[in-house]
Amino acid sequence: MSYNLLKGKRGIIFGALDENSIAWKTAERVHEEGGTFVLSNAPIAMRMGSIKDLAEKTNSEIIAADATNIEDLEKLVDQATEILGGKIDFVLHSIGMSINVRKGRHYTNQNYDWTHKGMDVSALSFHKVMQVLKEKDAMNEWGSIVALTYMAAQRVFPDYNDMADNKAYLESIARSFGYFFGKDNKVRVNTISQSPTPTTAGKGVKGFEAFINYADKMSPLGNATALECADYTISLFSDLTKKVTLQNLYHDGGFSNVGVSQDVIEKFE
Amino acid sequence: MSYNLLKGKRGIIFGALDENSIAWKTAERVHEEGGTFVLSNAPIAMRMGSIKDLAEKTNSEIIAADATNIEDLEKLVDQATEILGGKIDFVLHSIGMSINVRKGRHYTNQNYDWTHKGMDVSALSFHKVMQVLKEKDAMNEWGSIVALTYMAAQRVFPDYNDMADNKAYLESIARSFGYFFGKDNKVRVNTISQSPTPTTAGKGVKGFEAFINYADKMSPLGNATALECADYTISLFSDLTKKVTLQNLYHDGGFSNVGVSQDVIEKFE
Amino acid sequence: MSYNLLKGKRGIIFGALDENSIAWKTAERVHEEGGTFVLSNAPIAMRMGSIKDLAEKTNSEIIAADATNIEDLEKLVDQATEILGGKIDFVLHSIGMSINVRKGRHYTNQNYDWTHKGMDVSALSFHKVMQVLKEKDAMNEWGSIVALTYMAAQRVFPDYNDMADNKAYLESIARSFGYFFGKDNKVRVNTISQSPTPTTAGKGVKGFEAFINYADKMSPLGNATALECADYTISLFSDLTKKVTLQNLYHDGGFSNVGVSQDVIEKFE
Amino acid sequence: MSYNLLKGKRGIIFGALDENSIAWKTAERVHEEGGTFVLSNAPIAMRMGSIKDLAEKTNSEIIAADATNIEDLEKLVDQATEILGGKIDFVLHSIGMSINVRKGRHYTNQNYDWTHKGMDVSALSFHKVMQVLKEKDAMNEWGSIVALTYMAAQRVFPDYNDMADNKAYLESIARSFGYFFGKDNKVRVNTISQSPTPTTAGKGVKGFEAFINYADKMSPLGNATALECADYTISLFSDLTKKVTLQNLYHDGGFSNVGVSQDVIEKFE
Repeated sequence: MSYNLLKGKRGIIFGALDENSIAWKTAERVHEEGGTFVLSNAPIAMRMGSIKDLAEKTNSEIIAADATNIEDLEKLVDQATEILGGKIDFVLHSIGMSINVRKGRHYTNQNYDWTHKGMDVSALSFHKVMQVLKEKDAMNEWGSIVALTYMAAQRVFPDYNDMADNKAYLESIARSFGYFFGKDNKVRVNTISQSPTPTTAGKGVKGFEAFINYADKMSPLGNATALECADYTISLFSDLTKKVTLQNLYHDGGFSNVGVSQDVIEKFE
Repeated sequence: MSYNLLKGKRGIIFGALDENSIAWKTAERVHEEGGTFVLSNAPIAMRMGSIKDLAEKTNSEIIAADATNIEDLEKLVDQATEILGGKIDFVLHSIGMSINVRKGRHYTNQNYDWTHKGMDVSALSFHKVMQVLKEKDAMNEWGSIVALTYMAAQRVFPDYNDMADNKAYLESIARSFGYFFGKDNKVRVNTISQSPTPTTAGKGVKGFEAFINYADKMSPLGNATALECADYTISLFSDLTKKVTLQNLYHDGGFSNVGVSQDVIEKFE
Repeated sequence: MSYNLLKGKRGIIFGALDENSIAWKTAERVHEEGGTFVLSNAPIAMRMGSIKDLAEKTNSEIIAADATNIEDLEKLVDQATEILGGKIDFVLHSIGMSINVRKGRHYTNQNYDWTHKGMDVSALSFHKVMQVLKEKDAMNEWGSIVALTYMAAQRVFPDYNDMADNKAYLESIARSFGYFFGKDNKVRVNTISQSPTPTTAGKGVKGFEAFINYADKMSPLGNATALECADYTISLFSDLTKKVTLQNLYHDGGFSNVGVSQDVIEKFE
Repeated sequence: MSYNLLKGKRGIIFGALDENSIAWKTAERVHEEGGTFVLSNAPIAMRMGSIKDLAEKTNSEIIAADATNIEDLEKLVDQATEILGGKIDFVLHSIGMSINVRKGRHYTNQNYDWTHKGMDVSALSFHKVMQVLKEKDAMNEWGSIVALTYMAAQRVFPDYNDMADNKAYLESIARSFGYFFGKDNKVRVNTISQSPTPTTAGKGVKGFEAFINYADKMSPLGNATALECADYTISLFSDLTKKVTLQNLYHDGGFSNVGVSQDVIEKFE
């Protein structure tokens, strides 16, 4: 499907690694909807993934940037506005990483240098992106900024580790920065709290298969896919949602508001 | 703007009274987006308003129905599916009324017959509409049902009176019924929690002018208008939001997540 | 244990049916803590239960009252203040009943007369109790009113039926009425959202055994018992919590903020 | 008042600076309730404050510790259990600091080294304290850990700056760590979200006077004082609240659930 919802809109999409990525699907859908964008990812992630295929397919350029590095972000924003021929209308932040998770450290036995690093990459990078955009006055009025998050920010999922706290910090940034970006520049800032999704990153979390199955059985409409998340993101980038801001929006087939489902309770009978 | 987002979709829109109504604006926008629908309102509301103009403008038929009366609703659903030529894809519930408010009874001095009547009209009618739709198997898969609500369901607005409790009940129905409608029929059910809006109904609330001014000053993007609410509703009726369900979605320029704004705090300096 | 936390305080306790009741345990604990009270229950509930034993044990009188009947409530408040020798310091509302549940009607196939009746008994009765107390100016400053609720007001528990919506309405009343009771009389109003508890009423809910087992396995500290709920209620009646008001307080061993526990996820591996 | 609620219980209280501190008031109240404890503060804070007076008054010892330094925390826990003669029953974390606030940097123009430092002191220190306590198995079963927070974690207060995000991270730690502490050791972990309080730290926030006035006028019971917060903390340390865990508890005279008060709306008429 295509509705030309983003015709004439320009953006930056962070975090497309491979075709399982939500950011990848979003880039494809934005392209279909008539938007133009640059893709950005960390240099190391770019080597691992196949982002060049995506760039070709969507007629977009890739700009490597460490999203924790202000200079990188400044160059990115300068180049993006130049390449795209104007100010930015939409941004997707899909960046997250926990060294404690990767190295198998339990949540109650953290290496705090890793905790800081993970928080910098997964959460503070969102602030940095917006601070650079705002200081450079690079966003158009009624622009839309979205970051992906997970419900571990509100409730405990034991294997999610310090990413839960990072997501809580990220969601708080959306509100705190969104207030000023709204007031000063009429830019909206929201987070999408997505179902567990079998992306390359998601799969790294311990017990992921069992968890995705559980979430699916808890959700009246089943888990939301990466493509469905891309669709939802399109709606938030479009002009249909101009007054939605500072929100954390659950995109999860209903999981967040289910206390227990019939399928799950049956396991306890 | 028009994107053909609702091409081929059929629906029922409750509660269009006059051109200030959110339901009125939604009907206009649905029409622009290619959807077809029947309009329904209470017989008494139809005499007061100018719904015929809307029907003409949008090529739609009007079916009078008391939304608290099961027989009326059954006829409505039967006729709507016949007129529209198939099952229903979207429903807007924009119905609310408090006799305690109208008659000036303070919240702490209610007439409980009126309380029951207001709850029936404002909240239980939403359950009745869905119960009839479900029993008649009248919804298409991936259909979308939206009811309008207000944040008084979560926080106290002293003049909102028993409508606050009605809205809390309404939002609970969205979750409770949405679970089964999702599980059994892949239908999603959500509520939109809208900024105070100067509709004919809204204006009836005591101190409304001051309140709308306050809300505007608290919201980073200002209050959302009826037309903007119609746009947001379109996005929820569209196929872009298939996995959003059981949610209460704030459409309020950010109000719901602001503790205090600079404009408001200045009044206390 | 006993700390004399409620020495000199007078109250009304609604809903003690038998020794499994939370209200029963609360009455015992209030007595231990030095408080005096009258017990009230519906005439029919009094015939079923053994409330006289409780009255003897706690040196308290029983006043039959239908909590949906204003005249009954007026008599109750008049008699209670006379018997206790002064204004009221604390009230426990532990009243709930759904005919749809009792009669086995599915949530999507309600008998709406029963829905109204259940809402009147389970939710509106709380408003009525407070309206009578306020009109008679029967509460002492810094008095504390508590109603028991359940998390089905926020999230779907499929078998909880229309009680979910009733509890949402009840919690809204706590906020709406609590605002005015606080402002005008310095009275606080809160709800306790308790773990599923094997009371005589709770056991009536379909699939209760499986559910209580599930909740226990989800909660880091396990389900909260009726006695523990009584203890928590004591803390809310005491002078230690004077500025806690309009809150819905989870007393559930952590259940409400757990997305999934290790014990539960294991069932999906 | 005194009820012997904490007789025989041992604890650690972080963050008592001077007699305006919530931690100071809590220490006094814990002492009255029969609890024993060590006081801990950062070396620099100890030089500024008058904590020795508090120590004398409450018969307690002071142990200097930088709460971001694991070695300091390990020594603290070792010494505390030795001095107090057993494992710990309660902990109060009342620690917060933002260099961006102190130096007058706007939220949208942060110095990120300062952001990291503030996050370490204000939020991660809470994790570090619990990690050390858990690794040393220093908590008694049914122990209670409380951290102080503020509602800026949920809603925007423009002058609260990066402390909002720190508090969101802190509250997430309470849930994440509380899950494991509950499961493994039957220890509960909660945060109290307190009214703005004219402590020496609070006063440092820009526009604090206007804000405290606004909050007072929004709250049906007025702002909660430091002493009232100490009382509430006592209730959470006591055995009356054994099954309350992973919660963020508003202690704010009702502010959190008020959308607007009559006093505030009058300013807009």
